[in-house]
Amino acid sequence: MTSDLRVALLGQGFMGKAHSNAFCQAGHFYDLPYRLRRTLLCGRDAASLERMASRWGWEETSTDWRTAIDRPDIDIVDIALPNHLHAPAAIAAAEAGKIVFCEKPLAMTAEEGRRMVEAARGRPTLVWFNYRRVPAIAYARQLIDEGRIGQVFHYNAAYKQQWGADTSRAATWRMDPAQAGSGVADDLMTHLLDTALYLNGRIREVVADARTIAPNREIDDAVTALVRFENGSAGTFEATRFAIGAKNQNTFHLHGARGMLRFNLERLNHLEVVDATVPSTEQGPRDLLVTDLKHPIFGNFWRPGHIIGYEHTFIATVAEFLECLARDVPFHPSFEDALVTQQALEAMLISSKTRQWTDVSAS
Amino acid sequence: MTSDLRVALLGQGFMGKAHSNAFCQAGHFYDLPYRLRRTLLCGRDAASLERMASRWGWEETSTDWRTAIDRPDIDIVDIALPNHLHAPAAIAAAEAGKIVFCEKPLAMTAEEGRRMVEAARGRPTLVWFNYRRVPAIAYARQLIDEGRIGQVFHYNAAYKQQWGADTSRAATWRMDPAQAGSGVADDLMTHLLDTALYLNGRIREVVADARTIAPNREIDDAVTALVRFENGSAGTFEATRFAIGAKNQNTFHLHGARGMLRFNLERLNHLEVVDATVPSTEQGPRDLLVTDLKHPIFGNFWRPGHIIGYEHTFIATVAEFLECLARDVPFHPSFEDALVTQQALEAMLISSKTRQWTDVSAS
Amino acid sequence: MTSDLRVALLGQGFMGKAHSNAFCQAGHFYDLPYRLRRTLLCGRDAASLERMASRWGWEETSTDWRTAIDRPDIDIVDIALPNHLHAPAAIAAAEAGKIVFCEKPLAMTAEEGRRMVEAARGRPTLVWFNYRRVPAIAYARQLIDEGRIGQVFHYNAAYKQQWGADTSRAATWRMDPAQAGSGVADDLMTHLLDTALYLNGRIREVVADARTIAPNREIDDAVTALVRFENGSAGTFEATRFAIGAKNQNTFHLHGARGMLRFNLERLNHLEVVDATVPSTEQGPRDLLVTDLKHPIFGNFWRPGHIIGYEHTFIATVAEFLECLARDVPFHPSFEDALVTQQALEAMLISSKTRQWTDVSAS
Amino acid sequence: MTSDLRVALLGQGFMGKAHSNAFCQAGHFYDLPYRLRRTLLCGRDAASLERMASRWGWEETSTDWRTAIDRPDIDIVDIALPNHLHAPAAIAAAEAGKIVFCEKPLAMTAEEGRRMVEAARGRPTLVWFNYRRVPAIAYARQLIDEGRIGQVFHYNAAYKQQWGADTSRAATWRMDPAQAGSGVADDLMTHLLDTALYLNGRIREVVADARTIAPNREIDDAVTALVRFENGSAGTFEATRFAIGAKNQNTFHLHGARGMLRFNLERLNHLEVVDATVPSTEQGPRDLLVTDLKHPIFGNFWRPGHIIGYEHTFIATVAEFLECLARDVPFHPSFEDALVTQQALEAMLISSKTRQWTDVSAS
Repeated sequence: MTSDLRVALLGQGFMGKAHSNAFCQAGHFYDLPYRLRRTLLCGRDAASLERMASRWGWEETSTDWRTAIDRPDIDIVDIALPNHLHAPAAIAAAEAGKIVFCEKPLAMTAEEGRRMVEAARGRPTLVWFNYRRVPAIAYARQLIDEGRIGQVFHYNAAYKQQWGADTSRAATWRMDPAQAGSGVADDLMTHLLDTALYLNGRIREVVADARTIAPNREIDDAVTALVRFENGSAGTFEATRFAIGAKNQNTFHLHGARGMLRFNLERLNHLEVVDATVPSTEQGPRDLLVTDLKHPIFGNFWRPGHIIGYEHTFIATVAEFLECLARDVPFHPSFEDALVTQQALEAMLISSKTRQWTDVSAS
Repeated sequence: MTSDLRVALLGQGFMGKAHSNAFCQAGHFYDLPYRLRRTLLCGRDAASLERMASRWGWEETSTDWRTAIDRPDIDIVDIALPNHLHAPAAIAAAEAGKIVFCEKPLAMTAEEGRRMVEAARGRPTLVWFNYRRVPAIAYARQLIDEGRIGQVFHYNAAYKQQWGADTSRAATWRMDPAQAGSGVADDLMTHLLDTALYLNGRIREVVADARTIAPNREIDDAVTALVRFENGSAGTFEATRFAIGAKNQNTFHLHGARGMLRFNLERLNHLEVVDATVPSTEQGPRDLLVTDLKHPIFGNFWRPGHIIGYEHTFIATVAEFLECLARDVPFHPSFEDALVTQQALEAMLISSKTRQWTDVSAS
Repeated sequence: MTSDLRVALLGQGFMGKAHSNAFCQAGHFYDLPYRLRRTLLCGRDAASLERMASRWGWEETSTDWRTAIDRPDIDIVDIALPNHLHAPAAIAAAEAGKIVFCEKPLAMTAEEGRRMVEAARGRPTLVWFNYRRVPAIAYARQLIDEGRIGQVFHYNAAYKQQWGADTSRAATWRMDPAQAGSGVADDLMTHLLDTALYLNGRIREVVADARTIAPNREIDDAVTALVRFENGSAGTFEATRFAIGAKNQNTFHLHGARGMLRFNLERLNHLEVVDATVPSTEQGPRDLLVTDLKHPIFGNFWRPGHIIGYEHTFIATVAEFLECLARDVPFHPSFEDALVTQQALEAMLISSKTRQWTDVSAS
Repeated sequence: MTSDLRVALLGQGFMGKAHSNAFCQAGHFYDLPYRLRRTLLCGRDAASLERMASRWGWEETSTDWRTAIDRPDIDIVDIALPNHLHAPAAIAAAEAGKIVFCEKPLAMTAEEGRRMVEAARGRPTLVWFNYRRVPAIAYARQLIDEGRIGQVFHYNAAYKQQWGADTSRAATWRMDPAQAGSGVADDLMTHLLDTALYLNGRIREVVADARTIAPNREIDDAVTALVRFENGSAGTFEATRFAIGAKNQNTFHLHGARGMLRFNLERLNHLEVVDATVPSTEQGPRDLLVTDLKHPIFGNFWRPGHIIGYEHTFIATVAEFLECLARDVPFHPSFEDALVTQQALEAMLISSKTRQWTDVSAS
């Protein structure tokens, strides 16, 4: 007997579409322990809301996200609102006893994040750092856990997009500091930090340099940072929307005593691996197409070599959450995990202002 | 007012899953002129049939595919049965006045194919050569149509898989000549031929060499061919399931007077293009990530750089079919198109037996 | 005590430059058992001959290549003349008791080649199929010899250039059938065949298709072929000067029971290797930078990762020849080896005329 | 009438070999305005010195580098000694009226560098930042000069090697702070800085993080830095000998308003270029094989697509120096240029100690 979980989705933008798709598709590819019902879609624009609800099979709509909190039949509140609404919505949902899903970044500030963690203590939470469910990244983690990479020396991460350089684009809430908090920091650097946390653990210290490049813009267009990790490794981070030539290059390079890992989101079915324990003549980056049935996640979808895309990371995220829920084990990344990322981000933003190395735990 | 089209899917295997997904998803990403209803799922194994119907939302099931033909409420019969059943099912469906979708290859023989075309004359048909709807391949066609490549000199195509070399795998109908017709010829070479037909037109003449490599196997494991196209270009074709190291490498290289195109299905979001009209110092393969909103097909899915996968080609196929149906214009590839491919394939198989260059039109 | 070997080079063109460089450089990178002296340079154009001799340190010059044959002090006659002069010069040199080096192709016909082999029987010979000394290709051979690739199923080779499509280029002897014999067949296909002979053994049977694409041209611009090897493997071959977008793409792909090898001359320091004996999750093309001190050949030059180029293959060829000479063991490729290649080429040219599969040994 | 220039080379190590080769080869590929004579080779180990002199054609040897200074017939003193001897040898040579060539880094400190510049004022000088003569890098500069890249936003550079992690290797002077000054900073970071100076101009400010990873080592194994350039662009720099999996990856990425450039020394014949002025559908990294006769430098060597290697950058360096000398125009990089690099490096080392952003001009 599979019981139902009724979902309310707050938000009707691009992420709302990605989440809707995940709720539709999870049961097609996974044997889910619960049946997800797309019960309520909340958004401010009534006209487009109806269209979206109809398209994606949401049973009801509301133009006030608080409806989701107030309705006792809603089990999961999924927040895909602009950043400044994450904390109020998540805290309200948690206090109403809901399971809470929240888009990244967790919050506008670490302090806000701490209040969210506090409010949700004991509740199952999920933050949509969906790239943990890229099969290649999950497999990278597996290789690290198996000791295949050894002591890490270097961790480099960069998230490069170019659309920020197009100043003719209509402004969205992402360009408004009051709604977004920061620019590439909150939007892209948080992705890098969550992946780094997942693969290489916590960051101890940072020095960062945030820049606004476009005239008259109020949020950061590019952030660079040097970091030191708690495990002794060090590296460079960069997030930018002014990287002409880069559509969606979310990359990491990781060098350890026993091998190397390299990844690029634009070719997310691939992971490059060097095994430095084989004879030197045989060492070189192996370009793995992470589409084997024995690779993590991929086997739920298609046959070897039949690649998947961006949306599948959302499907796997929700499916794994439900599995954790059924088995009563913690899901990651939770609010707590996302708070660690938020603290590292905040240290970067402080460092960029003070022009000093900044301790992450102190932020 | 959007009217309904009731679909019956014949087949519950891997392709049945891909088609089911397409029927579910097409309306999520496209403004469809019809509403597809997943009315009837037909398959021989009752137990797994129920599970599949429940998972993918098929309203009813039957263990006899003829039910789909007999029911007057069915609008579309979609055939995903073993190859030897394509002709009987398609002919029956066409004669019953259905819209007919058929998995590739069209038929076991060109003669069978001709009878299918005859039976379906005047009916809308679709053959699931889904790779025409890879955005990179559709964009390749667009560049060719715009004259960007010029007179074609060379066309090379190869479809390389490795699973045939694993003789421990359980035999399926694909290894049985009575059900499959041929091996890689019907399975993989037809994909190459359809893409070639789409991009470079008809083949005039072939010489081919089919081999069975695994002991005790009765179907071809590998086929190579030289071809001459009607447009004067020439090339090499190869399809194999013994290409160790290749998971799903469906590639083409096309060299014309004004440029080059190169593609590999394992990285289906990419198209490599050389523009030979720029100064020689600036000529080199441009690795396009075919995920721009102005690229064909892609804009229906996600944002630039947020890649798609295998399944999206099926979604786009059915969506474009419905658009053609609503506008009353021919959809491609139809049964007629697939017959051209079947004839080229048959010429290859004859050539391999006679050891002679073989004229395609004569086959 | 290192003794001298006096070299006479016949030819002052591009290959003459490559050979001159090899004679200069071999002693810088190898401990040679002989000291090469650049004694005599023969060429028809007296003015440029002096300049070339002065630039490359040739002690004397002659406008008649027969001088090299007649002079008793010449030990090595190195033939870099147009193809139609290979046989007369080589036969004369061999009959005069010289060591004979000859540019590829060996001859204009297999019959000519047989006479050259006959004349040189018992004499040390070298044919400048220099790509055997690309470290990556030598290493490919080593992996094959070690059993790392296993029984070969497929061997694909292509040599793609584009300059033939530029009909504004001044004609050279390479475009004249009387001097060149054939076009891409003699020039490029022979390279493919020698590498195939080196890596995969003899070819048993071919069917080929030669085309002249440029108007008013008398030699072949493009040749495609299907081949069957004596070891049971099969494959496709293609040589063309009309491959727009390809500068110098000399590639092979080899798939065997235990792995795959892939190479491209445009990136000659690299070899891609799949080891199919590791778990399926770990199989993927390893992009080896073949610049390790333990890789063949490379260690004579620079440090790991400090890449080499085209010219180094000539340096290694002459150095290895001298080592063989000192140790009195056969050097490869010799005239005998090159005759095998010439026979396979001739079978292709015959097949292209007769439109029949053609047995190599019968040619 | 070509006059002679007599060279004395100080140093018999790896760089001595690279320089010797350049002196031998420059006249083979360039029409030099002077004839270089390999007059004197200086080195401490008499036995190997003779072997090296004999191999590379040095006329005389000395075990005391001061011989080169004292001999009035020596025109060029070329310093390939350990770093701590660069300043004394260069100052002595300059004061003796010689032309001075010096291996990188220029000096142990910026102060030393300033004294070298002072001593050599008015003298022709050359510092062996040979990578400026990689054709792809020279072509990158040409594209920038032509305005093809536009205002630069981002400049990322990394030099990754792995040999430092092999603690079993015998120590050389490179691991001794007294002889080397620093580790990867002087060895690899200086290469990155010179290329950045060449392509993107001067750096204004840095914050850096140097680490010694190997136990008991006294020099830096890895350095990361954030930089701000005078032109307003910013970026990350990293130099390391602990980048397992990287043989010799000297890379830069440059993003400007009109395009992108990307380079990797391991494939030095290639330059990746995005032209962001074409329609968005056509934007993607073009992988240029920088081997066209119209590309800078390459045309002196071989034919298009016949690649060159590491050593050719030295050959081109000395050839271009002689051309400048004959035309009486300044050669770059000179001692003055290398001092700019040394100052940026020193700012990095200071920053790493003070943990502060550091102004380059103030160092």
